[in-house]
Amino acid sequence: MSYRSIIAGADSEQPDVAAATSAAAEAFAGYRATSPEARADFLDAVAAEIEAARAEIVEAAVAESHLPEGRISGEVGRTTGQLKMFAGVVRRGDHLGVRIDPALPDRTPLPRADIRQRQIPLGPVAVFGASNFPLAFSTAGGDTASALAAGCPVVVKGHPAHPLTGYLVAQAITRAVEKAGLHAGTFSFLLDTDVKGGIELGQTLVVDPRIRAVGFTGSRGGGLAIVAAAAARPEPIPVYAEMSSINPVVVLPGALEGDIDALATAYVGSLTLGSGQFCTNPGLLFLPRGEAGDTFLAAAGRATAEAVGGTMLTPGIAAAYEKGVEKLRATDGVTVVGEGAAGETDAPAPQIVEAARLAGVTDEVFGASGVVVRFDSVEDLLPSLESLEGQLTATVHATDADNEAAAQVVSALELKAGRILFNGWPTGVEVGHAMVHGGPFPATSDSRTTSVGSLAIERFQRPVAYQDVPAALLPEPVRDDNPWHLARRIDGELQLP
Amino acid sequence: MSYRSIIAGADSEQPDVAAATSAAAEAFAGYRATSPEARADFLDAVAAEIEAARAEIVEAAVAESHLPEGRISGEVGRTTGQLKMFAGVVRRGDHLGVRIDPALPDRTPLPRADIRQRQIPLGPVAVFGASNFPLAFSTAGGDTASALAAGCPVVVKGHPAHPLTGYLVAQAITRAVEKAGLHAGTFSFLLDTDVKGGIELGQTLVVDPRIRAVGFTGSRGGGLAIVAAAAARPEPIPVYAEMSSINPVVVLPGALEGDIDALATAYVGSLTLGSGQFCTNPGLLFLPRGEAGDTFLAAAGRATAEAVGGTMLTPGIAAAYEKGVEKLRATDGVTVVGEGAAGETDAPAPQIVEAARLAGVTDEVFGASGVVVRFDSVEDLLPSLESLEGQLTATVHATDADNEAAAQVVSALELKAGRILFNGWPTGVEVGHAMVHGGPFPATSDSRTTSVGSLAIERFQRPVAYQDVPAALLPEPVRDDNPWHLARRIDGELQLP
Repeated sequence: MSYRSIIAGADSEQPDVAAATSAAAEAFAGYRATSPEARADFLDAVAAEIEAARAEIVEAAVAESHLPEGRISGEVGRTTGQLKMFAGVVRRGDHLGVRIDPALPDRTPLPRADIRQRQIPLGPVAVFGASNFPLAFSTAGGDTASALAAGCPVVVKGHPAHPLTGYLVAQAITRAVEKAGLHAGTFSFLLDTDVKGGIELGQTLVVDPRIRAVGFTGSRGGGLAIVAAAAARPEPIPVYAEMSSINPVVVLPGALEGDIDALATAYVGSLTLGSGQFCTNPGLLFLPRGEAGDTFLAAAGRATAEAVGGTMLTPGIAAAYEKGVEKLRATDGVTVVGEGAAGETDAPAPQIVEAARLAGVTDEVFGASGVVVRFDSVEDLLPSLESLEGQLTATVHATDADNEAAAQVVSALELKAGRILFNGWPTGVEVGHAMVHGGPFPATSDSRTTSVGSLAIERFQRPVAYQDVPAALLPEPVRDDNPWHLARRIDGELQLP
Repeated sequence: MSYRSIIAGADSEQPDVAAATSAAAEAFAGYRATSPEARADFLDAVAAEIEAARAEIVEAAVAESHLPEGRISGEVGRTTGQLKMFAGVVRRGDHLGVRIDPALPDRTPLPRADIRQRQIPLGPVAVFGASNFPLAFSTAGGDTASALAAGCPVVVKGHPAHPLTGYLVAQAITRAVEKAGLHAGTFSFLLDTDVKGGIELGQTLVVDPRIRAVGFTGSRGGGLAIVAAAAARPEPIPVYAEMSSINPVVVLPGALEGDIDALATAYVGSLTLGSGQFCTNPGLLFLPRGEAGDTFLAAAGRATAEAVGGTMLTPGIAAAYEKGVEKLRATDGVTVVGEGAAGETDAPAPQIVEAARLAGVTDEVFGASGVVVRFDSVEDLLPSLESLEGQLTATVHATDADNEAAAQVVSALELKAGRILFNGWPTGVEVGHAMVHGGPFPATSDSRTTSVGSLAIERFQRPVAYQDVPAALLPEPVRDDNPWHLARRIDGELQLP
């Protein structure tokens, strides 16, 4: 099967950026005016079209990503679930953030005008999908779903690691656009399978004046290049880049009083899941010095030795992994704790190393490589945590006996990570209302947001106030009769519909 | 009276950035942990200390700004009112944005973890006050009040146009910090009265690694320099710069069927208020061609001729105004409609000009200079509106008879401005819950926010998720017993306390 770009509903041999963004700009006025029900129905329809094409999408994604069918099949469900969640968000309408301060004509010394606020969409959004989640963080992934939910047309830059998957998903979205009777420019998909051409395509897209915001999931280098390009525009735009994280795990002494073997096996399981190709892969683990810690490390080494590398997403990612491992092993004070077996082509061996010190071992190695650093006490540990860069997640293993230390650890980790979890593993990001998949730089380029979960919609909006606007001209969300049954803040007080 | 910097509670001859930011970083842990009541009481105490020093603050501000005493006295009330409003926001706690997705242990195929989200403060914030509001947008202005409300220590860069005013207000804040028993680093005030020294001081402050966000109100050049410096840091930080706006006014035909003289006089009143030194000054007015429009223009010309220039905030601002006026008059197609009288030293004459076309007349001239552009029909007008840069405000004068045209105008203006107002004038920004004082670039550097009103607090926060964190370690806002009586989103549904 052949694949190509889809621009405003039509297949195109050329990934013509201006054609896609012009169509998106044209589509914006109509799309942002859709009713909550119409927009939510459209999101549900996108989910249904993806579900209808599930078999061929799964086949393509498995072939292109080398990820197992079970995982890819689950990711389809996650992708459609995400779209349906945002349909629910749109129907509820809380993201419109309505605030009404009624007029006070008799106030002295000056009367107060009638002032009403709502959030409006920013305009056309460019989305760069990730190689490691060809569905849930790609063409119809969280960035696309939340931007469409906010009322923004979307132009996706297809990922060269899964071009057919992207194209098939783009076709599904295009069918939903057509059936919903929306302007064809509401969604476009631009593809250049040449890596260098793809990078140029992405740069052109980010600096196009019609693009008003960017969602990106990928490498630190790629993300920073997009951030720089967006900041250098005559009119800068927000970039939500999810880039780099080593997801520190802190094991406190109490956690080593239970089943150490099970804990070590679970650690290695999370580290090697999907060949370690998760943004939330636990790349750094802080372990108490002493006998119990030694036992854990030995068990983790044994579990790693039993692991076999899986084929990575691309040969480039496999090569970068091997280079990262090499650099790590050449670092002073680093010793190998356990090494698994290499698998087929481009399936390098998983590994765990112990590092005598934190300095020099905190660069992300994308893949199944774990670094263990030991600590003597929480006083010893805290400066290490405080020295870390921003992270997507931070994990603590502890029991109630550790509470005093754990409280200090949580307080330090809050300033470093978007999500703190206890007695679990960070791989696995729940799509829900309370999730944060974000965090301080360089985990993301904008710590004030999340790229997973319903809060993600707020990235693509801005507030507008209406002062003394005649009733006949007020937008529905701020009208007195509240036709959309929204929760609204009246004079500062939240009122349910 | 002498004035200087105040660093962590102590007067200092030198505006030592590192000393102030180190103290702020030290203060952060304790300050962010304050209870809502303690933090709100502190904000109220800042207001009370300013009120107690009102006489000397007003005297200093009038002398330094050349603004009339009535205006400055009103601005003190606005400043303290703002602090008290944020105290109320902190007590209510809705800005904490709590979301709880309870565990679903029986969910298949995988159980759901317990996930809870709240907003936490970013850390120490740098605030650059504005020359034109020596109180409400300066040392204890909206940026400082909202950052302190969010739980962020603040380092103010004092404005050289009102050094004593800034110092007196900083003393008041310092007294409140001390009485509240807070860490002295919670607030510092850095002053360099030399303009060049002050610019260097500001740059040093913005790139200091302990600063986590910046609030700025001032010129486009100054704002863009700060945005660039913040973006070039090893770890970039958000900058909220409110910079430049010409605040277009659209007069629709119906508005000219009433009292044209009164409308024209009100226009000139808004244009010349405070010598035109408002961010929201109506610098551009679109007027229908034809007899009624001619009558309006003639009346506006007469009203302008009767106006006398007031002494501007600084000689530099007066010189920039005269240069801007000169450039405008030299533009092809520009004719003078009315010119007032120059006042005392540095009090240049107000003016209104008519421009044959929009091109070349849209640069902000800070001061009492208005440009009028005529239009034939709404079809003629809309492309002009669409060509404008981002604005803080956009105003429409219309009657019910204009509704059809007004709807199109509002739809265009929504994409250009943070606030749309009808049948009024944009000078005068209400401090409330629904206000937006923001807008697309270059009105501000971040259209997603407002610098006035209670929503401003959200600029200094970021979300953190807690997954399966033991009850004993959960922060108060997300605990099951809801000790702070917060509105919370449970499984996506908003619930009032």
